[in-house]
Amino acid sequence: MSLLVVGSVALDTIETPFGRAEDTLGGSATFFSAAASFFCKVHLVGVVGHDFPVADLSFLEARHVDLSGLEQRPGESFRWSGVYNFDLNSRETLETRLGVFAEFRPKIPDSVRDARWLFLGNIDPVLQLDVLRQVNRPELVVCDTMNYWIESKRDDLLRLLERVDVLMVNDSEARELSGEYNLLKAARWIQARGPGMVVVKKGEHGAMLFTGELIFYAPGFPLEEVFDPTGAGDAFAGGFVGYLARTESMTPDNLRRAVVTGSALGSFAVERFGVERLRELTRAEIYDRVTRFRELTAFEQLVETG
Amino acid sequence: MSLLVVGSVALDTIETPFGRAEDTLGGSATFFSAAASFFCKVHLVGVVGHDFPVADLSFLEARHVDLSGLEQRPGESFRWSGVYNFDLNSRETLETRLGVFAEFRPKIPDSVRDARWLFLGNIDPVLQLDVLRQVNRPELVVCDTMNYWIESKRDDLLRLLERVDVLMVNDSEARELSGEYNLLKAARWIQARGPGMVVVKKGEHGAMLFTGELIFYAPGFPLEEVFDPTGAGDAFAGGFVGYLARTESMTPDNLRRAVVTGSALGSFAVERFGVERLRELTRAEIYDRVTRFRELTAFEQLVETG
Repeated sequence: MSLLVVGSVALDTIETPFGRAEDTLGGSATFFSAAASFFCKVHLVGVVGHDFPVADLSFLEARHVDLSGLEQRPGESFRWSGVYNFDLNSRETLETRLGVFAEFRPKIPDSVRDARWLFLGNIDPVLQLDVLRQVNRPELVVCDTMNYWIESKRDDLLRLLERVDVLMVNDSEARELSGEYNLLKAARWIQARGPGMVVVKKGEHGAMLFTGELIFYAPGFPLEEVFDPTGAGDAFAGGFVGYLARTESMTPDNLRRAVVTGSALGSFAVERFGVERLRELTRAEIYDRVTRFRELTAFEQLVETG
Repeated sequence: MSLLVVGSVALDTIETPFGRAEDTLGGSATFFSAAASFFCKVHLVGVVGHDFPVADLSFLEARHVDLSGLEQRPGESFRWSGVYNFDLNSRETLETRLGVFAEFRPKIPDSVRDARWLFLGNIDPVLQLDVLRQVNRPELVVCDTMNYWIESKRDDLLRLLERVDVLMVNDSEARELSGEYNLLKAARWIQARGPGMVVVKKGEHGAMLFTGELIFYAPGFPLEEVFDPTGAGDAFAGGFVGYLARTESMTPDNLRRAVVTGSALGSFAVERFGVERLRELTRAEIYDRVTRFRELTAFEQLVETG
C-alpha cells in the first residue's frame, strides 16, 4: 500500500483575523503527506531551496514519510504569502516567489516507480503528465489542479484527465473547467473526459464525491474556530487517498468512508496555522472525529404512522 | 395533531433564467401549507384581496387544509415580483405591493386556539407576538423572520424569541441577528435568547439543526435543474413542522428525520415555478427522496485494518 505524492513543499506567510505566521511549513505535498501518513507509507517527491529548514520535516519522517525524493537545490525555496478576509472564505495573494520550484522537474526514484497509489498535487499539468510517464500505471491516480492551469494549460490538462482516475477540485474550479454552473452537470462533464470519479470540495460547505452511480456528500465539520484554511484541500486529499491505500478497497461503501476521512483531516488542518495541528494529531482523534461526522448526518428512515 | 400557520398568501411574479411566471401563487403560508398538508391537518390564517383567485387554492383544500381563517378583504392582494440571477443564488426584488397585507391583523378563530403546533411565518414580530397572545400555548412554536425585521424591529423580535421553541432562519439572518459570523456561535447566541432549537437554512448547501446537545446537518439535494428557489424555505418549514406534528415526537432521532423531510420538501419546491411542483407531489415521492437523502450521506464506521 505504498503511496507516492508529487507536489510543492513551501514556506507560507499567512495573515488571518487571528494572527500571522511567517515562513511556516506549507505546500501541497507537505499537507498531503502529513495527513496521509496516518494511514500508510508515503513517498514524497518535491524540491526545496538551500534555505529550507529541512529539520522541520522530521515529524513527517517520524511518521514514516520517505523524503528521499525531496531534492534540495541551490536557490530559494518556494514562498507564498497571503491574507485571509474576516470570514476566511476568500484570500488575497500578496506574493508568490517560485524560487527553485520554477525549474522543478519531478524525478521519480526507481524505488517508487511501482507505487500503487499516486497523488499529483497542484502543479503544471505538463509536469503531472511527465510523472505519469515515469511510473508504472498505479492502481489509482488522483490529481488536483487550479484555475491558473485551467486557463493557461487547458489542452494539457484535458490530456491529463484522460489518464487519471480521480479529479479533486474545488467548486469554482469544477465550474470553470466544465463551463457548467450546476455542480452535478459539471461533475458529469468531467467524468466524460476520463476520471471515473470527481471530488468537488466546497470549503466550509463540505465535499461531494461523484462516481458513475454514486453521489456522496460530506458536510463541512462545524467548528467554533477556523484559524487558517490554508492546506485544508490537500489535507483532505491526504486523508482520502491515504484511507483508500490503507484499506485497499474501492467499493462504494469504502469510498464514502474515504471522503469522510478526508473531511476529518481537512477539518483538523484549519484549527491551527499551517501544518501545526496535523503535526500533533493522533489517529484516535481522527477516528473520534469520523464518529462525530456520523452523528452530524446520520438518520434512520422515516417512521410511517397514522 | 392540528397545525396552525399564520403568514402571507400572495401573488408572485418571478423571472428566472428559465422563464417567467406572472401572478403565480406564493406567500409563506401557501408554501408552508402545501408542504405540511402531506402530514397533518393544517389551519391557515392570512388575508387576501378581492382580486385573489381563491379557487386556485382548492388543491390545498383537497389535501385538508382549512382555509376558514383566510380573510378576503376589499383591496388588492399582496404582490411580490423579483428576478433571480443566472446562478439562482441571489435575487433582486422589483416590486413589493403589500395591498391588504399592510393592514393584516391576524385573527385566530376560536376553533384553532388550541392548535398543538404553530408556525409563525415571516411577518412583523409585533403581529407574531399578537398571535401568541391569542392562542393557548402550543406544544411547539416555530417562527421565521427576515433581515428587514432584524433591523427595524429588533426589540420586538427579541421579546418574541423568549416565547418560541424553534427559530428557523437562513445563514445571513442568523449572522445578522447574532452579530456572529460563525454559524455555531450564531446558533448558540440565539439559543441563549429563548429558542431551544435553531434551524439555519443554507440554500443549496443544506440546513443545520442546533439543539442543546445535537448538531444535525442535511445537505442540499443535488438537482440537475433548479427552476425557481422561491418558497423553498417555507416548504422546508412545512415539511419539518408537518412531520413533527404527524409523528408527535421530539426525540433527537425524530428531529433528524424532520430536518430531512423539510429538506426533501424544499428540494421539490424549487423544481418548478411557485407551488406547481408541490401541487402535484405525492407522499410516495417524498418518502423516496428521503431515502435518496440517506444514500447521499450515510456511511458506516471506519474499518480499522493493518
